[in-house]
Amino acid sequence: MLGRATEDAAASPAAALTYPFRGDHQAGIVTPAQERLHFAAFDVTTKSRGRLVALLKAWTDAAERMTRGLSAGEIGPVEGAVNLPPDDTGEAIGLPAGGLTITFGFGPGLFRDAHGKDRFGLADRQPEALRELPHFPGDNLDPARSGGDLCVQACAEDPQVAVHAIRNLARIGFGTVAVRWSQLGFGRTSTTSTDQSTPRNLFGFKDGTANLKAQETAALDSHVWVGTGDDARAGWLAGGSYLVARRINMTIEVWDRQPLGDQEGFIGRTKGTGAPLSGGDEFTEPDFHLPGADGPVISRDSHVSAVHPAHNDGVRMLRRGYNFVDGTDALGGLNAGLFFLAYLRDPRTHFIPVQLRMARIDALMEYLKVTGSALFAVPPGVRPGEYVGQSLLG
Amino acid sequence: MLGRATEDAAASPAAALTYPFRGDHQAGIVTPAQERLHFAAFDVTTKSRGRLVALLKAWTDAAERMTRGLSAGEIGPVEGAVNLPPDDTGEAIGLPAGGLTITFGFGPGLFRDAHGKDRFGLADRQPEALRELPHFPGDNLDPARSGGDLCVQACAEDPQVAVHAIRNLARIGFGTVAVRWSQLGFGRTSTTSTDQSTPRNLFGFKDGTANLKAQETAALDSHVWVGTGDDARAGWLAGGSYLVARRINMTIEVWDRQPLGDQEGFIGRTKGTGAPLSGGDEFTEPDFHLPGADGPVISRDSHVSAVHPAHNDGVRMLRRGYNFVDGTDALGGLNAGLFFLAYLRDPRTHFIPVQLRMARIDALMEYLKVTGSALFAVPPGVRPGEYVGQSLLG
Repeated sequence: MLGRATEDAAASPAAALTYPFRGDHQAGIVTPAQERLHFAAFDVTTKSRGRLVALLKAWTDAAERMTRGLSAGEIGPVEGAVNLPPDDTGEAIGLPAGGLTITFGFGPGLFRDAHGKDRFGLADRQPEALRELPHFPGDNLDPARSGGDLCVQACAEDPQVAVHAIRNLARIGFGTVAVRWSQLGFGRTSTTSTDQSTPRNLFGFKDGTANLKAQETAALDSHVWVGTGDDARAGWLAGGSYLVARRINMTIEVWDRQPLGDQEGFIGRTKGTGAPLSGGDEFTEPDFHLPGADGPVISRDSHVSAVHPAHNDGVRMLRRGYNFVDGTDALGGLNAGLFFLAYLRDPRTHFIPVQLRMARIDALMEYLKVTGSALFAVPPGVRPGEYVGQSLLG
Repeated sequence: MLGRATEDAAASPAAALTYPFRGDHQAGIVTPAQERLHFAAFDVTTKSRGRLVALLKAWTDAAERMTRGLSAGEIGPVEGAVNLPPDDTGEAIGLPAGGLTITFGFGPGLFRDAHGKDRFGLADRQPEALRELPHFPGDNLDPARSGGDLCVQACAEDPQVAVHAIRNLARIGFGTVAVRWSQLGFGRTSTTSTDQSTPRNLFGFKDGTANLKAQETAALDSHVWVGTGDDARAGWLAGGSYLVARRINMTIEVWDRQPLGDQEGFIGRTKGTGAPLSGGDEFTEPDFHLPGADGPVISRDSHVSAVHPAHNDGVRMLRRGYNFVDGTDALGGLNAGLFFLAYLRDPRTHFIPVQLRMARIDALMEYLKVTGSALFAVPPGVRPGEYVGQSLLG
C-alpha cells in the first residue's frame, strides 16, 4: 500500500514526530505547541444519536491513524476500487506525521438547541459551565465565525498535514456534520513546554512567557484539568478541560504607527527581550509597585498587569494560540491577529472574569477587535478500545 | 542592535537559506519554490510620480535587507527612540532569513486609470500584453480579490517571515499605496528545480510534474523571460516576465466523493505515482494515442491533455502556485484551492489560449471556480545601485 510517510524520508526531526492519540488526557493540550494549526467548528446536522456516536467512532479511528502518519482510512488514497471514492484524500501522501495532534471538543449546542430543547438525550449531562460566553466589551462577533456543536483542533509542524486531517474528518462527517467555520494559524504564539522558546505575536512582542507549561503538573491540575468533583452533572468531563477560542483581530496598521515607548507601555514589557518594564529578563516577575516618573513603571492599564494572576485571583490558563492573516479587510488593512486558544478548568472562574477585567482596563483593547468566539468542553483522553466522548455518550 | 537572526541559531538548513536580492532577473521566479507564500496586491493612492519612485526605492532597500535576514529598516524593531514608531514591526526578531525572496510586479493600472488616462507619464511605455485578462468561462471573480497596480510576492520557508515582509512593505507604503488584496499559501504546489520532489495539490494529486525548471535555461529564455525585441514600447521589461495570478477555488467536498477512477480520468494521471494513465512513471511523457476500452486511455478532456504543450502550440509556463485554505464558504465547505501563479513571456501566447482551451474542454473545470485574477509585468532584476522598476521609472 502506498501510505503516508512511506515515500520520502522525514525531512526533519520535527516532521517525523508522533504523539500518542490515546491517554489520560487528549493530546494537543499540553503537547509542545506545534508550529501550524487548522481548527474547525462543526454543526451537527443529524437528529440521530446513533449517527452521532457512529461519527465519533469513525473520527476516533481516523484521528488515531492520521496522528501515526497513516492515511485516514484503511484502504488509503490510491489503492481502493476505481469505482469508489478513496477513503483518504491524498494530499498528505509522502508526508510524515509532522507531530500531528487532533483534539475534540463539544459545544453547548450539542446538548440543547437554540430553544433549549434536548437534542440527543444529553441535556441533563450538560456541564454547568458550558454556556455561551457573555458578550464582552470589544466583541464584534461574526456569527459565521462563532459557536459550533463540535470542534476539532489539528496541530502539526506542517500545515498540509493539519489541513489534511481536518479535511478528512469533514469528509467522513458528511451528512452528519457540516463545517461551521474554520481557521488556519501559521505561527504558534504560545509556549506549552519549558523546552520551547517564546514566539512572537503580530504586535511583534513575545507572547506566552508566563504561560502554564506541561512540566507544571500540579498547576495543570489546579487550572487546566476538570476535577472529578467539579460538576456533579458532568462527571464524564473529569480529566478533560474547557477550550475558549477567540478570533482577535489586531489593528496592525494603527499599531505600527505607535511609538516604541507607547507599544512597550501598553504591553508592560520591552519589545526586545520581553522583560517586564520593572527590569530583569523575560522570566523575571513583574514588579507592579516599582515607581516611575508618573505612577508605577508598569502601568495599571498595561496588558501584563491586567491579566496577571496576582490581579485575577491567582487563576492561570494554558494558552495555545496562533497568529493568523486572512487576506485583507474592507479598509485595505491586513485581516490579521491572534487566534486565541486557551484550555482551562472552568470558564466561570478562569476566563470570564479575566476577560471582563481586560475589557475594562487593558490599554491594548484599543488595538483589538474580537470577531469570533466559542466555548467547548473537551472530554478526557481516549483510552484503549474507547472512542472520543465515550464517557458522555457511551 | 537586536537584529533578525541574531537570537537563535537557525532551526534547520532551509531556515538559514538566503537568496541574493539583486541579479539579472528578480529572485522568486526560478528560485526553488519555498514552502510558504504571502502575496499582496496594492493600489497606488498617490498622484505623484516622485512619491511612487521614492516608495520603490524604499521598498528596494527594505526588501534587500529582509532577504538577508535583517530588519526592514536600519534602526530595527527595538533600538529606536521611544517616541518614534520602530522601523521594523518585530515579529521576525530571532527568525533567520528563511530563504525569503521578494518579487515585485506592475499591473495595468499603474500605467492608465480605469478611464484610460495616463497616471504617471508611463502610458506610452505600457507593454502591449499588459491588459486586463479577458473574462474566461468558469471565472466568478471577486473584484476585491482581483487586479492591483503593484504586486509583491513574498516566499519563504517560514510563513511568519513571509508575512513580516509583506506587512513591513505595506507599512512603508502607508500614504502611497494601500493593500488591495492579499493571499497566504501554505503548501507549494510546484517544482521549479530538478532538485525538488513534486508536491501535491488539494485534489490529492502531484502537481507540477511537467513544470519548467530553473535548470532548463534555454526553455526559460523561450517561455519565461521577456526578450529584448519582444515589445518596442516596453524595452524596460526585457529580462523580466509576466505574472498571472489566479485564485482557483476547488469544490473539495464534491471532488472527495468522486470515485478514484473518475478522479484519475479527469487528471489523466494516477493519483499514487503521478504517472500518465498511458503508463510509465511520473516523468514518462503521456501517450495521447494509446487506445483504451472507450477511446484513448488518456481522455481528450483530461487535464493533462488539455494543457499539454503538444496541444498548445508548444508553450510552457513556469508555475509557482500554492495551496490555500481560507476558512469556510457560505455552504459549509472549505474555502480552499490553488493560488495559481505562473511566470511567462507573453500572456497572449502563453496563457490566454491555454486558459480558453482548458475552459472549453478540461473535465476538471467542473470542480474549479476562479474567484480572483490579476496580471502583472515583472521588471527585470535589480542591479547594484538600482531600485526595482528603475528601467521603467528612472
